Amino acid sequence: MQKTSRNKISMAVIRRLPKYHRYLRELLAKDIQRISSKELSEIIGFTASQIRQDFNNFGGFGQQGYGYNVEDLYSEIGKILGLDAKYKTILIGAGHLGQALAKYAGFDEYGFHLTGIFDISSEVIGTTIQNVEVMHMDKLADFTASEDIDIAYICVNASSAQDITDLLVSSGVKAIWNFAPVDLKVPENVAVENVHLIDHLMTLSYFLDSE
Amino acid sequence: MQKTSRNKISMAVIRRLPKYHRYLRELLAKDIQRISSKELSEIIGFTASQIRQDFNNFGGFGQQGYGYNVEDLYSEIGKILGLDAKYKTILIGAGHLGQALAKYAGFDEYGFHLTGIFDISSEVIGTTIQNVEVMHMDKLADFTASEDIDIAYICVNASSAQDITDLLVSSGVKAIWNFAPVDLKVPENVAVENVHLIDHLMTLSYFLDSE
Repeated sequence: MQKTSRNKISMAVIRRLPKYHRYLRELLAKDIQRISSKELSEIIGFTASQIRQDFNNFGGFGQQGYGYNVEDLYSEIGKILGLDAKYKTILIGAGHLGQALAKYAGFDEYGFHLTGIFDISSEVIGTTIQNVEVMHMDKLADFTASEDIDIAYICVNASSAQDITDLLVSSGVKAIWNFAPVDLKVPENVAVENVHLIDHLMTLSYFLDSE
Repeated sequence: MQKTSRNKISMAVIRRLPKYHRYLRELLAKDIQRISSKELSEIIGFTASQIRQDFNNFGGFGQQGYGYNVEDLYSEIGKILGLDAKYKTILIGAGHLGQALAKYAGFDEYGFHLTGIFDISSEVIGTTIQNVEVMHMDKLADFTASEDIDIAYICVNASSAQDITDLLVSSGVKAIWNFAPVDLKVPENVAVENVHLIDHLMTLSYFLDSE
């Protein structure tokens, strides 16, 4: 596995990796130890050729004619996704959606550990959500820098999301998961993943309307 | 606008439409009445050529040399997205995430109206969330068919998501917004939008790890 070649890998390939990881996990749970690209193709819905091409970005994994060892493949893709490391995360905005993310079971088991929650509302500051303290936004920059936070979940409204992002970036955050309905401006070395809820609904209404 | 030609339009173009809609809405809020593809390019981040190509899928919109009328463009893209219609939605799974979606301000103003919530927990059945009654899952099929539901939000766990999807599809639902960490199998005439939360985190950890 050549980590240095990663920046050549297309975003489309990267976005398929979590899906491979999920399906391999299911195969492991079913005690399936070996799988061909053709069999994997049938369950995951990509062509066998696409699968082999994707895996060739990372040196292949497979043995011609023998298929893939499911456990090894799961483990290797997990490593490529960085899941052999642990990540400290914070949540900004403890509204309904933010609280749901804080309470979401399953992030922790993949190594994403919520260490702080920030809000401006006196109603929630000082309370705890899943044993994590809700702090005032004033403490965000110091906490982020001193705790060496890896990923910030932004669940605030559109108007304050960019200011908070600027603060996070200047405090050293390199990855942002943005739920605010706005596109954030960040330096090139900061990764952003957006969940634009309304965009999903509009895509569905597009299809409903064009039936 | 030629609705009949829509099925030729690529998913990549369709997914950019909500973004155009969002930026045009912001321009309107700033009382900007006219914009060139070059100016739009600078704020939205697509090339001017990309923007013109995208719009050509729907007959153009613009007048050479005059730029686009922002209000007209906003309205036309809204119509293409089906936002001139109203949609009845239901939520299945009133856990933390489901409740957050039910309480999310902003879906209603685009015409997405939540009309029913379904769960299996006696703790929530009979209560109301944002004035919408939480009903037992037993009532899902009848309600969906009789109320002519357009879109279902699935916020249940991975193991029950497919069974619920099958029930929804057989009750006439044509659009599903899936938050369960699983890929749903649906007939070709049913649209699915996925929000796979953990996939987003894995994409971020990929970038953090490959720094």
